[in-house]
Amino acid sequence: VLLHEDGLDPAQFAHELKAYPIRFFYGVPNSQNPSGVTYSEQRRKDIAELLRDKETLLIEDDAYGELNFAGKSLPSFRQYLPEQTIITGSFSKILAPGIRMGWVVAPPAVMEQLVIAKQASDLHSNYLSQRIAYEYLAHEDFDAKIRIIQARYKAQAEQMVSLMKELMPASVRFTTPQGGMFVWVTLPEGISSMEVFERALKEDVAVLPGTPFYTDGGGKNTLRINFSNSTPEKIRVGIERLARVIRDMPRS
Amino acid sequence: VLLHEDGLDPAQFAHELKAYPIRFFYGVPNSQNPSGVTYSEQRRKDIAELLRDKETLLIEDDAYGELNFAGKSLPSFRQYLPEQTIITGSFSKILAPGIRMGWVVAPPAVMEQLVIAKQASDLHSNYLSQRIAYEYLAHEDFDAKIRIIQARYKAQAEQMVSLMKELMPASVRFTTPQGGMFVWVTLPEGISSMEVFERALKEDVAVLPGTPFYTDGGGKNTLRINFSNSTPEKIRVGIERLARVIRDMPRS
Repeated sequence: VLLHEDGLDPAQFAHELKAYPIRFFYGVPNSQNPSGVTYSEQRRKDIAELLRDKETLLIEDDAYGELNFAGKSLPSFRQYLPEQTIITGSFSKILAPGIRMGWVVAPPAVMEQLVIAKQASDLHSNYLSQRIAYEYLAHEDFDAKIRIIQARYKAQAEQMVSLMKELMPASVRFTTPQGGMFVWVTLPEGISSMEVFERALKEDVAVLPGTPFYTDGGGKNTLRINFSNSTPEKIRVGIERLARVIRDMPRS
Repeated sequence: VLLHEDGLDPAQFAHELKAYPIRFFYGVPNSQNPSGVTYSEQRRKDIAELLRDKETLLIEDDAYGELNFAGKSLPSFRQYLPEQTIITGSFSKILAPGIRMGWVVAPPAVMEQLVIAKQASDLHSNYLSQRIAYEYLAHEDFDAKIRIIQARYKAQAEQMVSLMKELMPASVRFTTPQGGMFVWVTLPEGISSMEVFERALKEDVAVLPGTPFYTDGGGKNTLRINFSNSTPEKIRVGIERLARVIRDMPRS
C-alpha cells in the first residue's frame, strides 16, 4: 500500500481490505524505516476505522517510537483497537542492537499464543541479555537516557537537513525527520542511487540505496542516509562530499 | 516413524518415502531426546541408501553428539550423503544453554540460502554471546572440557542405571544411555507416568512424563529422567524415592 507523508493511503488500503481476506496488517506508524514517515493522528483514525470489527490483526512495529524528537507522541493503534493491536518494541535502537531483545504488547488471547510460538521457536531468549536488560532497567534512569538520545539525534538531524538545504541541488528532495535515525532522499528521475552509492563509497561516505525497500523494484532514485551514528564534523564532511557526488552525476 | 533401539525403522521409513513427496527428514541420530537412542551404523547406512539420489534433505540434529561417552562415535549422515545432509550443533549442552548459540554444517548451496533466511529472521545472532563463544574457543581447551563432561556424565549415568537395576520393580524397563543426559523409562502398561510425576514431585523428585514427546498422545507409561544435573548423593536419594513411588502406584 502506498505510503504518503502523513501515512498509509486509506483509499488504497480500504480497497485491499475488500479484495483480500487480510489476516494481519504490519505497519511502522512512527518514523517508518526507511522513509521516516510518521502517520498523522487522522490517518491512524482512518486506518483503525477500516479495521474495526474485522478479523485483521494490526502489528504496530514501534522500534522507533522512543526516538521521536518532535515533541508530541501520537496515539498508538492500541488506543483505537485494543483487541486487535499488537505492539512490538525493541532495545536495539535505545540500548544496544547486539543484545537482540525487544518486547510485545498484545491482547491476552494473542499473547498466550505468542508465548507458545516463541517457546517452540527458541525455548527462551538469551539469558545473559535478559539479565543485562533487567539490571539496566532496574538501576539506570532509562527515560533520562532516551531523552539524551532524542536531544542528540534532533541536533544531528537538524544539522544534516540544514546542510542539505544549503548544499544539495534544488532538484534533490528530502524529508525533515521528526524521529528515527534517517533522512530519506529522492534524487531527480534518471539518477541512479546505486551509482551514487558506489561513487560516495569511494569518498568514504556510506549511503543506502532505496531499491531493496521496494517490493516492486522501484525507488531506483531514492537513498536512505543516517544521521544518528556520526559526529557533527563527520556529518558536515559527509554531506559536502555527497552533494558533490550528486552534482557530478551524469543524467541517463 | 517408529524408533527402535538401533534407530529409525527402515521399512516404515521406505514406505513413507514412497507415500509422500518428503522434502526433508529431521532426525537425532546421536542420543535422541527423549529416548536416548543412538542409531547403529547399519541403520545409518540403511536410511542413507533410502534417501540417496532423492530430493529429500536430511537434517541431522547433533545437539548431543559431543555427549557420547560410550567411546566410539558413529559416522554422520554427511559421510554417506554429503550433498543432502545438514548438521546442526549446539553450545547449549556443552558450554551454556543461556547463550542460545549453535552451528550448522551444510552443502554450499544450502548454506547460502540459510544465511539469507537467518538474516531475514533475526539480522544476526546476539553479539555478546558470539564474543563469549569466540573467546572461550580461542583461549580455552574446549576438547578437554568436553572430555570432563563426558567422564562425569558417564559416571552419573552408570550410577543411576546401577541403582535402578537394584531398586526398581522388575516390570520397569529403562535404557542404558551411551550419551546424552537422560535415562528413558517404560513403566508397566496401566501405570500413568503423569501420576508418577505428581507423586514424585511431592517428594522433591522431578521426572518428565513422556507423552508430550509423542505425536499421537501415546507413551502414557513413559518417563524421561535426567542424570546430568545431579550429584551422586542426589541421584541415590532421587532413585530411591522414585522407586518407592512406582512400587506404591495403584494399577489401573
